[in-house]
Formats: sequence, C-alpha cells, structure tokens
Amino acid sequence: MARYRPFWLNQNGDLEVIDQRFLPHERKIRTLKTGADAAEAISDMTVRGAGVIGNVAAFGIYLSAREFDGDKEKIHQSAQSIRVTRPTAVNLMWAVDRMLRTIKHSDNIVEDAKAEAIKICDEDVKRSELMGDIGCNIIETIMEERNLKSFNILTHCNAGWLAIINNGSALAPIYEAHRRGIDIHVWVDETRPRNQGANLTSWELLHADIPHTIIPDNTGGHLMQHGMVDMVITGADRVTLNGDAANKIGTYLKALAAHDNDIPFYVAIPLSTFDFECNDGLTGIEIEQRSEDEVHFMRGLNDEGKPQTVRITPQGTQAANYGFDVTPARLITGLITEAGLINAAKSAIKPLQQFK
Amino acid sequence: MARYRPFWLNQNGDLEVIDQRFLPHERKIRTLKTGADAAEAISDMTVRGAGVIGNVAAFGIYLSAREFDGDKEKIHQSAQSIRVTRPTAVNLMWAVDRMLRTIKHSDNIVEDAKAEAIKICDEDVKRSELMGDIGCNIIETIMEERNLKSFNILTHCNAGWLAIINNGSALAPIYEAHRRGIDIHVWVDETRPRNQGANLTSWELLHADIPHTIIPDNTGGHLMQHGMVDMVITGADRVTLNGDAANKIGTYLKALAAHDNDIPFYVAIPLSTFDFECNDGLTGIEIEQRSEDEVHFMRGLNDEGKPQTVRITPQGTQAANYGFDVTPARLITGLITEAGLINAAKSAIKPLQQFK
Repeated sequence: MARYRPFWLNQNGDLEVIDQRFLPHERKIRTLKTGADAAEAISDMTVRGAGVIGNVAAFGIYLSAREFDGDKEKIHQSAQSIRVTRPTAVNLMWAVDRMLRTIKHSDNIVEDAKAEAIKICDEDVKRSELMGDIGCNIIETIMEERNLKSFNILTHCNAGWLAIINNGSALAPIYEAHRRGIDIHVWVDETRPRNQGANLTSWELLHADIPHTIIPDNTGGHLMQHGMVDMVITGADRVTLNGDAANKIGTYLKALAAHDNDIPFYVAIPLSTFDFECNDGLTGIEIEQRSEDEVHFMRGLNDEGKPQTVRITPQGTQAANYGFDVTPARLITGLITEAGLINAAKSAIKPLQQFK
Repeated sequence: MARYRPFWLNQNGDLEVIDQRFLPHERKIRTLKTGADAAEAISDMTVRGAGVIGNVAAFGIYLSAREFDGDKEKIHQSAQSIRVTRPTAVNLMWAVDRMLRTIKHSDNIVEDAKAEAIKICDEDVKRSELMGDIGCNIIETIMEERNLKSFNILTHCNAGWLAIINNGSALAPIYEAHRRGIDIHVWVDETRPRNQGANLTSWELLHADIPHTIIPDNTGGHLMQHGMVDMVITGADRVTLNGDAANKIGTYLKALAAHDNDIPFYVAIPLSTFDFECNDGLTGIEIEQRSEDEVHFMRGLNDEGKPQTVRITPQGTQAANYGFDVTPARLITGLITEAGLINAAKSAIKPLQQFK
C-alpha cells in the first residue's frame, strides 16, 4: 500500500522536504540545495524520524557531492557536519557511512551518490511494507487468541510515513491492519514537548481515516490498568546489541506500564536501526539534550485560525529537554523488523549483523 | 513557616479565591457569594487541589447557609450540588459531611457554619506543617544514609499552598527543607493537560526562591534511570484502605519508574484524604473524565505578552482526558501524614479511622 513521502527531488535535483515543524497547522515545503542545508534541516527538526533522517542525510551527501563537484575531502567534511546533528540517531550514521563507501572508489561521484540515496529509499519502502505485514500478523494472532473483535493500539511519538517511508515502522502494522479491514483504534500519545503524536501521528491517521484518540502522555498507564490497550508499538532511533531501545523520551514509562499490566510492547525498526557496536543502551547511548524553549513555547492556531506561538511556562523558570530515553530489553516483547520478529536479546540480534 | 492562601473571606463575608485557571500569566480574583458559586468554582477548576477543594466546599456550605438563612433542606440540596463536582476528591466529601454534621443540631447555623469552615482551615494549616516536618526528616535521613550534599526531588502536579494551606502536602517537606537550609532542587513535572506543574508548582517555587526545573511528563523515567532523582513526592486526591492512591493522571507512571530504579516514592496527604470505605483503588475509585478541550487547547502569553489560547491539535481529531490514575500500594514507599509516616497497607491505615 503506497502512501506518501515527506521529501522528493525536484526537477533541479534539489531535495524538497515537508517542514514538519509546521504540521499540522501549516503545510510548508523547504528546498535543500547543499549538504549544509540538509544538516540544518535534520538539526532543527524540519525533518525527523529515524528513517527519514537517514534518507535526508544520504541526499545531503549527494547534495554536497554536487556542490563540491565530487571533491572527496569537502564531501567528508560535510558528512561530518551531518553526522553530528542528532547524536542518538543511528540510521543517520549508517546512511552517511554507506554513502561514503559508495563514493570511495567511484569515478562518477555525483551521479553515484544520487543513485545510492535513491536506492536507500527504495529499500526503506520495502522494509516498511515487511514491518507492516509482520506486525499485522502479530495483531491478528493476538485477536484470535483473545477472541477480540476490535483492537486498541497505543503508540508514542511518530513512526509513520513522515518518519519512515512509505508506511512508517510502528504505524506500518496499523496501516496494514486498516487495509485488511481489522477494526482498530489507536491511542496517540501527545508526545511532549514537540507533540509529534498530536501534530504528526494524529494528522497521518486522520488523513488515512483510521480511528484514533489523542491522549496526554500521562494517560497510557491508566488505560492499560483498565484493559483499554491491547498492544503498544513504538519505533526507535537506536537498538543496541543487547536489545535496549532508545526512542522518544517517555517511551520507557509506557514500556513499564505495559509490563506491569501484561500488555505486549513491540518496537518496530528496520535493521539499519541496530547499533551492533553498542552493547548496553543505558550506559552506551548518548542522549541528545535540546533547547529548553521547546518546553516553554507551544505553537497552535489562535481564535482567528492563524498559527501562533505562546509561552506556556512562567517567565524566569528553567526547563530541561532530554530528547530520548532508553527502554531496557527486558521490557520489550519483541522487535518487528523486515527480517521478522526478533527477540530483544543479544543471542537473536548478533546474527543480524551480517544483513546490515 | 506561614506561606500564602489561595482564598480568604472579604469584609462582606464572601469568599474570594485566586482563579488558578489563569496562573501564572494573570492574577485574577473571583468572589463566591453562594453555594452554587462555590460548586462552580470547584467544578471549573477556579480552585483545585485536594485540601483547598475541601476548604472551598466547606465555605460553600456556609455561603449557602447564609443565602438560605439557615434553611436546612436548601443547604442539603446545595451540599449535594457541591458534592458531585469532583467525584475523585474525597476531601470534598469529607468536608461537606463535616459541615452538615455541624449544622445538624445548630441553632445558629450561619455563624456555626462559618466557624466550622474556618476551623477546618486552621486544622489544615497545622496538618501541612506536620507533613512538612515529617517529610523533611525523611529527606535528612536519606541524605545522611547516602552521604548526599544535595537532594533532587521529583513531583507531579501541584500539591503546594495553592492546593493545601499553607505549605501544601507534597511541597511541605520541600518548603521545610529550604527553611532548614538543605540544598534541594525540584524536578517539576509539567502535568499535562492542565499543566499544574508548570503553571502552579513552578510559580510557587519561583516565588519561594527554591531551585527547580520544569520537565515534560515524559522525562522523569530517564532522570531516574540516571540517578538524577533521590525521591519522588506527590499528593493524592484519595487513598484507599489498602493504600492505593488516586492522584493526577500520570502519577502511576512515575511510581512505576521510581520502583524500577529503587527510588523512594512518597505520597503526602492529610488523614482526611483517606477513604476508609473503599478497599481497592483500581476497582473502587471513580475516575473523573474532563472535557477534551483541555487537551486540544493551551493557554500562554503571545509575543506581545498577552494571554492567548491556541488550538494545538489538528482540527477534527478527538482526545480523551482522564483526570486521575491510581497508583497501587505496592509502588508506594510510605504515606506522609500529619499522624506520621504510615505504610501504604491496610494494617497501618485501618487504625487511623478513629482520627478522621
């Protein structure tokens, strides 16, 4: 089921991206012409989401190859500036490395870089479809076992087509379930402070006509205590060798609640999200800290229907803004990947290294 | 240490209350002249917080006694309309019952009701001071045991003087620690959707010069995993006979994280918050559902410094807004009450019934 993409090459060979900072209230397109443009778009969250960050990083290498006419030293400098934008995102590092390997022995660097970035995207689309199939099979199995007529899924942040082309990772099984005619309903965590759930996931689901309800991030535990959640699915920005998953801040709290209430907690990721170099997520993953203004200010529509930013906290207060947390493997029921359902354990993850 | 009060009788004998819906951006005072005014102020959250709801309910009975010139039947009708405003709040029921007992055999109903409401407040002040002392002693003990030079406390929602006069319940040990010169820092959960943490707790702490940092509700788990929280203290709206605590939605998630990271999790409550009639919190406590608009809309200051409400979710989406969740007793280290530190267990709670 083809969906949409949050970026595309225009006729000049520039990369146009949906500026996700303005969704759902405004649809703005930003044009990236250089590697520096791509780095900035990733850093300021014009684009976000594990897969799409990798895609835009790959196109960023192509853009810098074009800008510097194949000068490898300058491309490597640009690659480094792209690499440091989001320290938690392993797809970003993976995509940059793959692009640099491609141009290493190339005689036609600009064209080869462009072709490789497109190839990464084509592969991501296939991965997303596979994750959708595998995840939806799990949903059908649970419904059969528990004799359910409808199915409630809770998700955190956005891991839909805005994050991983073309169906997302965590949302791929949801889109597939909808396609198969399963009666699903999605609890959408608002996902403060940037509200990717309320802004992006609900926007995606609304346009796909999939029933859903936005909830404050505080709500999931209560719903799980009362049997109102049948499964939790999230994406991840990095999964370590031992199966720990770094994902949007707050994921760990939902995993704890799912565990406490015997609700399956799945993480849907392409294999490119594994970090085989990192054994332990709690000690080994650098957690990005972002501007406290993301906590202080909120954007919405005023009573004239115009976008407006307001300060919601008292003047003079300070805020902290950690972007991610780490969910320990012991809380994860399984990892939904394009290679199948994988246990969140070293014994299952280590053999996958060959496919990356 | 006397602090402030969010309500007072004016020279006409009306109850003036700080309209907490407008804090921290505006200071508005609302005047309550009748029992119906009091019911409305509780219902629409002009006033909130376990203790203050009870106080305003008590004065509401006085106001209705004055309005109906001591007509007991009409006072009882008014009491009923006050009672149904916030189904989760047990202090509300307790205060109404106590006021009705007072006027039952009174010959001077208006004056006796007024005196009883004032007496409830005086008792609350004393309770708050005792909770502060007992809680602060726990802080000092932990610091000594772990040889800490500074102390990090996480709290959810607002249980300060805006909620329980004059020092709050959960914030009372924090105010007391500050008075004793302990180097404390408070992580303030924003507490979506109404942001009582960011709007009220940080406003209280800012004015008391107590170091604190506002965090999204998603953040606490990460901080606890990394040793950045030494204790969690919250208030509660109702604690059952078996020690389950109903408090602002999201409290349960923080209790799970504290438990998972061996961090003490305390609930500070006056004895009036116990519901001795209710054994099990998960099945026995009605959880209030509030308007979904509290999720859709946010209030803050625009770039001209004027208060403004914006819609933050996509048009056409729906939201759910459960006001409270229940933290099971097994996750609660202890209950800080004016009668001492109590185990969250039936064996410890049942004997307290005589004091209520």
